[in-house]
Amino acid sequence: MGATETIARFALGMGSTMVPEPILHEGKRCIINYLAVALYASADPSMKILTGLFEEEGGNPQATIIGSDMRTSLQNAALANGYLAHLEDYDDTHFPTVIHPSAPTIPAAMAVGERLNATGLEVLVATVLGVEVCCRIGLSVHPHHYDAGWHITGTCGVFGSVVATGRLLGLDEGQMVNALGIAGTQAAGVRETFGSMSKPFHAGRSAQSGLLAGLLAVRGFTSTPTILEGRRGFATVLSTASDMGKVTEALGERWELPNNGLKPYACGVVSHPLIDAMITFRNTHGVKAEDVHAITAKVQPLVLELMDWKHPRIGLEGKFSHQHSMAVGLVDGGAFPAQYTDDRVKDPIIIALREMITATVDPEMPEDAAEVTVMLKDGRSITEKVDHATGAPENPLSDHQLEDKFRNLACRVLLKERAEKLLSMLWRIDEADDIGEIMALVRP
Amino acid sequence: MGATETIARFALGMGSTMVPEPILHEGKRCIINYLAVALYASADPSMKILTGLFEEEGGNPQATIIGSDMRTSLQNAALANGYLAHLEDYDDTHFPTVIHPSAPTIPAAMAVGERLNATGLEVLVATVLGVEVCCRIGLSVHPHHYDAGWHITGTCGVFGSVVATGRLLGLDEGQMVNALGIAGTQAAGVRETFGSMSKPFHAGRSAQSGLLAGLLAVRGFTSTPTILEGRRGFATVLSTASDMGKVTEALGERWELPNNGLKPYACGVVSHPLIDAMITFRNTHGVKAEDVHAITAKVQPLVLELMDWKHPRIGLEGKFSHQHSMAVGLVDGGAFPAQYTDDRVKDPIIIALREMITATVDPEMPEDAAEVTVMLKDGRSITEKVDHATGAPENPLSDHQLEDKFRNLACRVLLKERAEKLLSMLWRIDEADDIGEIMALVRP
Repeated sequence: MGATETIARFALGMGSTMVPEPILHEGKRCIINYLAVALYASADPSMKILTGLFEEEGGNPQATIIGSDMRTSLQNAALANGYLAHLEDYDDTHFPTVIHPSAPTIPAAMAVGERLNATGLEVLVATVLGVEVCCRIGLSVHPHHYDAGWHITGTCGVFGSVVATGRLLGLDEGQMVNALGIAGTQAAGVRETFGSMSKPFHAGRSAQSGLLAGLLAVRGFTSTPTILEGRRGFATVLSTASDMGKVTEALGERWELPNNGLKPYACGVVSHPLIDAMITFRNTHGVKAEDVHAITAKVQPLVLELMDWKHPRIGLEGKFSHQHSMAVGLVDGGAFPAQYTDDRVKDPIIIALREMITATVDPEMPEDAAEVTVMLKDGRSITEKVDHATGAPENPLSDHQLEDKFRNLACRVLLKERAEKLLSMLWRIDEADDIGEIMALVRP
Repeated sequence: MGATETIARFALGMGSTMVPEPILHEGKRCIINYLAVALYASADPSMKILTGLFEEEGGNPQATIIGSDMRTSLQNAALANGYLAHLEDYDDTHFPTVIHPSAPTIPAAMAVGERLNATGLEVLVATVLGVEVCCRIGLSVHPHHYDAGWHITGTCGVFGSVVATGRLLGLDEGQMVNALGIAGTQAAGVRETFGSMSKPFHAGRSAQSGLLAGLLAVRGFTSTPTILEGRRGFATVLSTASDMGKVTEALGERWELPNNGLKPYACGVVSHPLIDAMITFRNTHGVKAEDVHAITAKVQPLVLELMDWKHPRIGLEGKFSHQHSMAVGLVDGGAFPAQYTDDRVKDPIIIALREMITATVDPEMPEDAAEVTVMLKDGRSITEKVDHATGAPENPLSDHQLEDKFRNLACRVLLKERAEKLLSMLWRIDEADDIGEIMALVRP
């Protein structure tokens, strides 16, 4: 049996009660984190572009756009909510692949769930299985696929979305195989667009493409039975090497969800250990911007590949600047959305600090680690070695920290009381009779 | 100036009167051919899948679905009409790249044109420029891109669609650069899906993706300024080698449209010289199926790469079987949609003939040529060498042959009188005050 068929069987055959409790809990954390970042992002002016387009194009009111009074078609909702989930680069990261799996997966699960009045447990399990498949397919082509320039969240995201959609729609196995084919042949998104709205658009489009695949397959639309493993299929065409064993081995026994970290900072994940170090300089050693003579860092290779942007001109670019992220870590003690505004990247103190930073690649440096040395004007120097960045699988955000993140972000658009009610319902999502009860709370 | 910016300037700066008359005429032929094949395909049962989805999802009635009473959103219309245009594999082919450029381009041009009440000339010029850009970008990555397994119509098609859309929407240059970026980062479609509905879906999704890019860019959505030439852009990520000179050199002076051939047969273009030879055996030499002992063919490499499918089980698979295409050429004297039904591929006489065919690759064989030898049971053998297949740039369909094709196909869903009126308006599309006058005639 090929990888595609194996995935189809897994996605449909895994009963809700067969998913281990810790994995379901991790799934809840993903949903809470997803809604937190999407609610915050819903106030961004760029959302008017999408809602304006939906008003022009139309769409039956079937699914909720987060943080808005608009209900629209499932496809529109998936596009918008996937965009929102990734806009602040503050969502989650599957560390082994750098996929952000919730942003393309959960919008589809929730839109279909809302349309079908699915239970909270059904939506939760669809999310968990979608994320699992998305990450495993990512593993099968990593690192070649990302190295080639693909935005792996956009490409592999279609599989998370289609698995969640197909399961909730109740596809049969043949339809699910076709749905995977229709989804996989839409896989897209190149890294050249990083630092623009097109990056979060990848997550939204991916959510929408996987959803569309499910909606077509349930009506009888056809595709290949071998989208993953075929000679002209996803893995061969979009990667120079691949290992289908990573997709199928111990499926349903070993889970990828514990390797998915919730982000503490609103920027590219590879800079997170650097920010941790800068915050320690500030909070533990009392270092101030005006004390600094120079800063050097030993970093893993992706830092310079992805985030070497000394002079970001707008906030979105700042999210891909390790220099900016380090500077705000020292000055502000954090790297939250407020640190990535168009104004904040132009602050003279931040600009001066960015100039003082020099990073050198250490190919042996693990992906969640870094070593930073600050040289002070008084001649002293301090070195901080971070072994596991905050939010990494070995140093995860606690449930309590996640709740703080949720409250801070959600309250940009929700009243405090409603945010608390939503949070408490989300921890008990598996008891909700109808996901619509929850979606009713994500409007302002 | 980079390739992306050059294309943006070309797409916006080329005045309608600057396009040479023979190129405009070729553009009209593309539109006539496009409507012919889309009208025919509109009666296919699979269209109910798309229209059923649109009814469920909604969409304001702004653009016409060909061959239907449904008007829907621009995006829905582009998806459906692109699908229709490519469903029968009977559209057109840019021979140097095997792109089918009209299917992703014209649906976008016509949907936007209809919405804006654009003139026929504006839609015609948008089509011509879209096809030009689509084919040139294809040239820049050919043959590596297609060889890697990409369906080049799906990938490069987004550029045809976005250029047509962006021009009609009146984007400024910065918006057009962003639109190209949003379109290019959606480029998708792998060849593994050939022989299923997902192949024509590529054309539809591509039309829709380019259109969406334009609709977003005009509202201020952003992307990269270097989608074509960037280090992580389209050419580098989706091809092992590329030449940006092919995109920009003599742009607006040398045109690719004359290299685009309108298909005489409803199947993969690489089999067309083989079909020509079989029809000659039948019509000139009086060969009948029961006379045949064996058939051998010398073919160009893509025939076996793309169309080596000895036992197609359904009509869509038959379109990728050179054996089936040759067999119906001999028995039926043609390879029209009627030769690619689910029933026709199961005909015992056709099956027996397919068994007798052996093709050998000749790497020196030009793409529009083939040599076929039929050995008869009476011991005679006849060889036919086809230098330029019917419909190839050096042996194009005449205007008269195109009219016959149009009448044959359009009359599946239109009354004869309406088809004639439409045909005559299409030859004078550049005189139409409002493209809506034409779209009103493509409904049954």
